[in-house]
Amino acid sequence: MYQTRAYAASSATSPLASTSIPRRDPTEQDVQIEILYSGICHSDLHMVRNEWQSVMPTVYPIVPGHEIVGRVTKVGSSVTRFKPGDLAAVGCLVDSDLSCPQCQADLENLCPNQVLTFNGPDHHGTAPVTYGGYSDSIVVKEHFALHLPSNLDLSGTAPLLCAGITTYSPLRRWGVTAGKKVGIVGLGGLGHMGVKFSHAFGAHTVVFTTSPHKKEDALRLGADEVILSKDAAEMQKHAGTFDFILDTVSADHDVNMYLNMLTHDGTMTIVGANENPMQVSGFALLMGRRNLAGSNIGGIAETQEMLDYCGEKNITADVEVIPIQKANEAYERLLKSDVKYRFCIDMASLKEE
Amino acid sequence: MYQTRAYAASSATSPLASTSIPRRDPTEQDVQIEILYSGICHSDLHMVRNEWQSVMPTVYPIVPGHEIVGRVTKVGSSVTRFKPGDLAAVGCLVDSDLSCPQCQADLENLCPNQVLTFNGPDHHGTAPVTYGGYSDSIVVKEHFALHLPSNLDLSGTAPLLCAGITTYSPLRRWGVTAGKKVGIVGLGGLGHMGVKFSHAFGAHTVVFTTSPHKKEDALRLGADEVILSKDAAEMQKHAGTFDFILDTVSADHDVNMYLNMLTHDGTMTIVGANENPMQVSGFALLMGRRNLAGSNIGGIAETQEMLDYCGEKNITADVEVIPIQKANEAYERLLKSDVKYRFCIDMASLKEE
Repeated sequence: MYQTRAYAASSATSPLASTSIPRRDPTEQDVQIEILYSGICHSDLHMVRNEWQSVMPTVYPIVPGHEIVGRVTKVGSSVTRFKPGDLAAVGCLVDSDLSCPQCQADLENLCPNQVLTFNGPDHHGTAPVTYGGYSDSIVVKEHFALHLPSNLDLSGTAPLLCAGITTYSPLRRWGVTAGKKVGIVGLGGLGHMGVKFSHAFGAHTVVFTTSPHKKEDALRLGADEVILSKDAAEMQKHAGTFDFILDTVSADHDVNMYLNMLTHDGTMTIVGANENPMQVSGFALLMGRRNLAGSNIGGIAETQEMLDYCGEKNITADVEVIPIQKANEAYERLLKSDVKYRFCIDMASLKEE
Repeated sequence: MYQTRAYAASSATSPLASTSIPRRDPTEQDVQIEILYSGICHSDLHMVRNEWQSVMPTVYPIVPGHEIVGRVTKVGSSVTRFKPGDLAAVGCLVDSDLSCPQCQADLENLCPNQVLTFNGPDHHGTAPVTYGGYSDSIVVKEHFALHLPSNLDLSGTAPLLCAGITTYSPLRRWGVTAGKKVGIVGLGGLGHMGVKFSHAFGAHTVVFTTSPHKKEDALRLGADEVILSKDAAEMQKHAGTFDFILDTVSADHDVNMYLNMLTHDGTMTIVGANENPMQVSGFALLMGRRNLAGSNIGGIAETQEMLDYCGEKNITADVEVIPIQKANEAYERLLKSDVKYRFCIDMASLKEE
């Protein structure tokens, strides 16, 4: 066991602050990574403030961060896929049982015994819970470490580990390809990646937004069209024409408006959620034989596939790189959607603490 | 144009009563059918009482009935698939545009210009709206008339036209076969057909019910297991294990309880709905990558496929045959679920009016 620097919150109302946390010494199966960049995901903020307490209560202190890129510093004796000096990444998961039907199907993200990168049960007994990426280093089982393409900017790569796979996976799962009409609801950290992937997959990509000022940027990111969701006539014109809609909005909103945009057998997938149930019209599903689905990150193999695809197509997230000392300020700005489109912490700044 | 006897309601609060309605003379494309049996569907009652007014307001007088079996009495000159004396059936649809993408895909049930068997726009100008099966005869475009297997009891066949196809279609759509674990929620007119089909398709079929006294009957209908949905321990035991769930309950109920029964990539399809939105937990969909879908009857080709399958497997609905004079009483009993499992009107009784 060794100590490493981190930023942690000590309660639901405390700001993140510099501290020291324990990490296990790498076991024979582990990879130790020096963290270079750590993306800020909205779920970091939800968990830091214990906003999902009914489903995942937060244990304090919490060290958030599950969009981690870095460089391997040490590997265990049975590690074969990584060596010191390699680039490596860690996403939302650091463990799972690897034996259940979901794990057998490369869906560790659906494993009932999965261990989240932070606030998950620490089976090694190093600490009460796992600690995430707002930290100098992390030790992770090889299976959950990912290779990074060498051609991508590292800060823009970090958000691929959550925002990237969360949008890539459902677009793949529901067959988004050329010839399909695809809607993206919400143009934030997730939504902007959804636009990039949908466009890269060749689909006719449409952004739904409530903000006219987002139009230009949506087109720059790869959208073919932008629909103002408050414009009823515009919405009516497109009703029943979408093959797939990716809804990235986790705040309460009217999902039926978007369900009605789907053609027959069309699917809308939600990738965000909050504690309030959605109000879903049964008729919106019945009429048109529509489908409302959920998706939650992706499996490890698919995450690697996504990273490789991003390398091939030169896709990264649009990030604003900040020092960790600005993390609390970034959280406040996140609440106002004041970021294009993801904050990414340059972890070198933690060395100054 | 000719007059035919029927049972109609003249307002949302009026009982059904004997009356006379106009029918068009068969055009060259039409089949005229003497109605022998007409099933009573819960949506008859919803429409008679204008309970779906926000989506489909009722025009009075209304002649309900869309589970129609009978015998052909006359055919138009261009009709090729029917001749007088043939058995024939009519379900929920009597017309559609036959040109839209849905119709081209044999999904007339999803055509935006579909004409429902009752309370639909009458494009022939015979009456303000179409009149349904609680009547001596009906005239329908050949495309919407179905052939009946010769080996089935006619009264038990009538409900196949709605309750049958409504459950058959989603079970087929979502790949219910041997090796799958399938749940049926609600053991009424729709649910009992869902059990029969799921069992016939070879799936491990489980009925969810709130009523212990339904257990024996569920097993008789083909269920392999019965789960009391109020028994939390029993529900927990089966959580995450179902490949598919057919939810036939249209009254308000907790859908999340059943979503949590689904395995990863499992689908729950609703086939009933009411005006109140469902309260759907986003987390129930996200965790397990689950799907909530809707389904609404089926196309004409699939309805014929279903009827042929029923002939082959000797499947009919369990019916209580009543004279039309008991239709109002049957509606009251329907509200109390006091029928096993579908009322079917012997239309010979209408001749006594």
